[in-house]
Amino acid sequence: MQNLDTYLWPKSVALIGASPEENNAKAGIRGRLTSVLLQHGYDGEIFLISRSNHEISGRKTYRSILEVPSDVDLAIIATPAQYVVDEVRNCATVGVKSILVVSSGFAESKEDGAAERQKAIERICRLNRINLAGPNCQGFVNTLNGLFATFAKPYDKPNYAIVPASGRSGRVAIISQSGGIGNGYFVHTRLKEMAASYILTTGNEAGVNLSELIEYVLDRGETSAILVLMEDIKDPQTFIRAADKALKMGVPIIVSKIGKSEAGQRAAESHTAALAGGYSGTQAVFRKYGIIEADDIGEMADIANGFCHFGNCLPAGNRVAILTGSGGGGGLMADAASGAGLVVPELDVETRRSLDRVIPDYGTSQNPVDATAQGLRLVRYSGLIERVMPSSEIDAVLFVASTRDTLTFELDAERLTEISAELQKPVLVWTYTVPFPHIQEMYGEVGLPLFTDLRNCTRTMREMADYHAFRTSYLSCPVEPSLPGCDKTSAASLLVGMSGALPEFQSRPILASYNICEAADLLVDSPESAAEAQASLDVPIALKVQSPSILHKSDAGALKLNIKGPGAAAKAYSDIVANAKKYDPDAKIAGVLVQPMMPDGVEMILGISRDETFGPMLMVGLGGIFVEILNDVAFAPVPLSRNEARRMLRRLKGFPLLSGARGTTHADLDALVEMMVRLAKLADDFRDHIAEIDLNPVIVHPMGEGVSVADAMLVVDGSFGMSKQDQHRTTHSAA
Amino acid sequence: MQNLDTYLWPKSVALIGASPEENNAKAGIRGRLTSVLLQHGYDGEIFLISRSNHEISGRKTYRSILEVPSDVDLAIIATPAQYVVDEVRNCATVGVKSILVVSSGFAESKEDGAAERQKAIERICRLNRINLAGPNCQGFVNTLNGLFATFAKPYDKPNYAIVPASGRSGRVAIISQSGGIGNGYFVHTRLKEMAASYILTTGNEAGVNLSELIEYVLDRGETSAILVLMEDIKDPQTFIRAADKALKMGVPIIVSKIGKSEAGQRAAESHTAALAGGYSGTQAVFRKYGIIEADDIGEMADIANGFCHFGNCLPAGNRVAILTGSGGGGGLMADAASGAGLVVPELDVETRRSLDRVIPDYGTSQNPVDATAQGLRLVRYSGLIERVMPSSEIDAVLFVASTRDTLTFELDAERLTEISAELQKPVLVWTYTVPFPHIQEMYGEVGLPLFTDLRNCTRTMREMADYHAFRTSYLSCPVEPSLPGCDKTSAASLLVGMSGALPEFQSRPILASYNICEAADLLVDSPESAAEAQASLDVPIALKVQSPSILHKSDAGALKLNIKGPGAAAKAYSDIVANAKKYDPDAKIAGVLVQPMMPDGVEMILGISRDETFGPMLMVGLGGIFVEILNDVAFAPVPLSRNEARRMLRRLKGFPLLSGARGTTHADLDALVEMMVRLAKLADDFRDHIAEIDLNPVIVHPMGEGVSVADAMLVVDGSFGMSKQDQHRTTHSAA
Repeated sequence: MQNLDTYLWPKSVALIGASPEENNAKAGIRGRLTSVLLQHGYDGEIFLISRSNHEISGRKTYRSILEVPSDVDLAIIATPAQYVVDEVRNCATVGVKSILVVSSGFAESKEDGAAERQKAIERICRLNRINLAGPNCQGFVNTLNGLFATFAKPYDKPNYAIVPASGRSGRVAIISQSGGIGNGYFVHTRLKEMAASYILTTGNEAGVNLSELIEYVLDRGETSAILVLMEDIKDPQTFIRAADKALKMGVPIIVSKIGKSEAGQRAAESHTAALAGGYSGTQAVFRKYGIIEADDIGEMADIANGFCHFGNCLPAGNRVAILTGSGGGGGLMADAASGAGLVVPELDVETRRSLDRVIPDYGTSQNPVDATAQGLRLVRYSGLIERVMPSSEIDAVLFVASTRDTLTFELDAERLTEISAELQKPVLVWTYTVPFPHIQEMYGEVGLPLFTDLRNCTRTMREMADYHAFRTSYLSCPVEPSLPGCDKTSAASLLVGMSGALPEFQSRPILASYNICEAADLLVDSPESAAEAQASLDVPIALKVQSPSILHKSDAGALKLNIKGPGAAAKAYSDIVANAKKYDPDAKIAGVLVQPMMPDGVEMILGISRDETFGPMLMVGLGGIFVEILNDVAFAPVPLSRNEARRMLRRLKGFPLLSGARGTTHADLDALVEMMVRLAKLADDFRDHIAEIDLNPVIVHPMGEGVSVADAMLVVDGSFGMSKQDQHRTTHSAA
Repeated sequence: MQNLDTYLWPKSVALIGASPEENNAKAGIRGRLTSVLLQHGYDGEIFLISRSNHEISGRKTYRSILEVPSDVDLAIIATPAQYVVDEVRNCATVGVKSILVVSSGFAESKEDGAAERQKAIERICRLNRINLAGPNCQGFVNTLNGLFATFAKPYDKPNYAIVPASGRSGRVAIISQSGGIGNGYFVHTRLKEMAASYILTTGNEAGVNLSELIEYVLDRGETSAILVLMEDIKDPQTFIRAADKALKMGVPIIVSKIGKSEAGQRAAESHTAALAGGYSGTQAVFRKYGIIEADDIGEMADIANGFCHFGNCLPAGNRVAILTGSGGGGGLMADAASGAGLVVPELDVETRRSLDRVIPDYGTSQNPVDATAQGLRLVRYSGLIERVMPSSEIDAVLFVASTRDTLTFELDAERLTEISAELQKPVLVWTYTVPFPHIQEMYGEVGLPLFTDLRNCTRTMREMADYHAFRTSYLSCPVEPSLPGCDKTSAASLLVGMSGALPEFQSRPILASYNICEAADLLVDSPESAAEAQASLDVPIALKVQSPSILHKSDAGALKLNIKGPGAAAKAYSDIVANAKKYDPDAKIAGVLVQPMMPDGVEMILGISRDETFGPMLMVGLGGIFVEILNDVAFAPVPLSRNEARRMLRRLKGFPLLSGARGTTHADLDALVEMMVRLAKLADDFRDHIAEIDLNPVIVHPMGEGVSVADAMLVVDGSFGMSKQDQHRTTHSAA
């Protein structure tokens, strides 16, 4: 594929299917597309292609792209679906670099031939190295070069500037599979006086996909925050590369992913031919890269607004001052801020003294700082902000305003504009009334983000603080490229010839080659050797039947725990082998594993499973009721940094059981983190081969005493050592 | 106090402190109050009282209320605080029935004499049986008689009708301690085309309080939903009576209570002299009466809007059809609806067939029903609604609309108006763009509530379904006024002379008189009698030292469990008595309790504690990590119906451990519910005397095998049997 410059920054554009008939139902979309393309001052060349019109809006038209006299970077195709394949072929003939197909009637349609049509244009573009965007989308807007390749209504003769005049904050990019929602984001952000860099809708993503566009927008560098509506992720590797890049650059991605619910998946599948996929893996990837998830469009716009204003001075912590002229408003904000995980400390004496000089005696400087309506008229917004800003007790400011009482704000606008340009800590404003449009504009000009939704305001501040802390941690603790004692060659040689679920005695050596646990202990094959083994160990032991067909050993009665004495060991051997044969008479039994009982500790489960989009995921959870009743587990894609492993543990509801809180013993978290990181490395190194790992239970001993794996099972995909093609064939026929 | 008719529906009003000077900073509030009072068509008599003006707005003024020639129902006092006491006295002299003081400078102020001033006007009004509203408030609006007794800006020469013209839905009442937020509610509801009946702000609540106003508004019957901002609850009994009345009438109360966080409590305390109080008790009361809690103002207005439109046809269940012209919008809605606990089922064959006739082949009828933008233009909103409405698979409809593409909606308005008047199931509309004001108005006229926030839309539907189900359950299962086997006389006689924490042997008989558990078993006083007791019982026993000074018996080593055999019993007796004496040499030991060990079951805790506002609360939770690590407990005020008890249990995260889910044994929930109801009755019958009950652990045995109380402690307030005055004195000196 070509560089996307010829798509979003073309020197020349041809519109195939141009039309002047804006109000004709049939050509309505094409007419509006033509009009929108011409009205926003794009300064490259525009060629209009139309079979039925000699001129449109005073411009000469061409009957075909083949007749256009000069090179065309981008062709926009808006004809009915049945003509699109021919037009794409013509574009290839004349060397067009990028094609945007807005027409519907492709893979999303149940009509005969529609899916084949999409395959045909994909093939032509692939062979000719043409960027193919769409089909079935609403096109895009690049506000930076005035190229509006879209028929969406919000850009057709708007009675507002697409980019607000004030321009005091960073730009937001909007990238959406759904055209309607993408433009919904635009309307919401614009009404908040935000400036957009790009609004990109991708539809069926036959070629150009969301992930590439995110990366492109980041590489261009004009954007401070990215809003994404995602139905599926067609290109997970690019997505991950882009997500990592965004986090390193400090450009937050705020995403709504459709398909969290079964009904949402149904909707995505029928809409843009997307396969939404399981959600926990996607969510784990979002979390790994600090991607912010939200549902509501206004909420997402609000979060982006905070970052566009204060991306360069994010809060260093989560302590806020609340400033208000309304006691009730201050109380609501205090509860909402606390509920969002922000801290509202009482202010320091010096700051309070400075505030008390300007606040009436029926107000208060404690925090929330209630200047009262009367006091606010005298000290003004700017006066309060200036007085609390130097306090070492706070990292940010939440201002509660009434935007119906506009006079105070209008008198203060000039001073506010001055101070907002030099703020060292972010200030977000929430209004408990609803702003008149001119007041919303004034806030834009002043340079402060205005929120009408209390939840969004407090959540935005919390997200900004979290993002700052998370990014710092991410940059300071990368995944270690190599870990001492992880012997990939040895693991690979142990995997050769293995396939399917491996019993513990085969799984352990592989884990041991990454120092995850000890290799398998003794395998015995008679009651006598079981008795001998017990006698020589002289500690209580466990006996476990080893058979690839008996994976649930408890259910089969194929294991016994806490066996003391050789006689008991011999009897236990006979019992469990008999049980195993009763359970499955055809089971091939490789022997019985002898294991000393583990010392006590907190029971956990640790595992690897494969997400269909993002590959292997590490899962960790506390055992017993935590996993069974509360489903208290955390996921993360592999490999894993130590910080990530720690964060996963802290997310568990049962974390206090490990951390020594509330009278429990402090567990050996360092050893557990080490095991998680190694397990993740093993899963990453063999991501195409190891389908699943199940360490259950893992016993976390008290601090300094390590972690034991009490049972282990690997599942190997296909048969390791076969060629990739063979493997593919095997996997495929198995599925 | 008088009936509030003379406050909110007076025949005549006097404004004391009337002023023409709207723009003079000092008299600004008074000037605007005068102007607002005169401009909204109130048809009672208005008398303006002013010392410095002979006439205002062409009206004669009076120098004092004493000079007014006829009876005054309501006097509004807006003078500076220092004149208010005299004016109140004058009002009393001429027989004014109700007084509203909007002035500040009373209990909320730290100024010398301010608190005394409030006490003075309270006293005068109480003695003269005058309704006193305020002080320190923004007054009120009654839209039904045009009485605007407020200086709030949204009512001063508005460029919109206060009550929208369409008037197709029920009215909302707004009741707020904070004036700013109360009027914020008004602005939000009005922009959603909602009609308000009353907007009442209460400030310091020296006399008239929130609870009375809620009850008054309910009794009047003009209101379909009530929005409340609450800082504290000064009159809990009235609040509970009003809450019960509202639920019976089907008028939902939607409340935001300040003081959920420590910072919020600080704000409330400094604002309107409110004491916010603990939150879990308040929340339990809200839950008992189906009161809906929300934080954001727009969110509350949205929820009220749903009820105002569909209070008479609430959804019978939680299954929704989603209708959309945007696939992306449908997907977002499907996820949000599922996330809000709604079910989005695939539609039935018949409904799908009817939809498929009008939906293009690149749309879908499955649910979400995606008609596509093109399809929607043909079938229109009304066509889709009519086709899904008869489906027996759904209880309600969520419609996803673009309000920028207005033509489709405008062409459909007439038909939509017809069908919306006859809907049997609610239809809520969410727009992913932002509506132009005239479109918002059109939705109001059509009779469908329009939401711009996705979360609010799905939450509103869920709240409507929950409210319907909850109310049905509440009406069908009242608290039983008497329970067989609850012997109040016997419990009272056991309580005589008791005070403080009662050891188990004294607590059990009291619980037994309400059939909560068996009375105390054997009390022994020597190793020999302990051995004899064990021998005669011939089961494993527990021995527990009984002393009012040793409440934490385990910590003191003062109990032993699972004792088998007379010798062990004798030894255990000696050990624990020795331990107890070591733990507290001065402890008075009443004996040692002998108890057979309880059979196995799920360990729970059950208790009574006292909320400072609402009195005794029953608490229930699972034992062990559930209470210790997860704080998994539920509260409810007493008494308790069986349905309420069941709902409390279902709210517990650990409920699956009781309900037989995921392989656990089905516990005897009926017996547990019976115990909860009886314990609640005991706490209610002795609400002034029993301060605390602690049953820990309670063992819930498998279905049919009952519940055992393994340990019990009552705490008696003061000394039961003393006169109320004595008790008060005792309690007071103890605190």
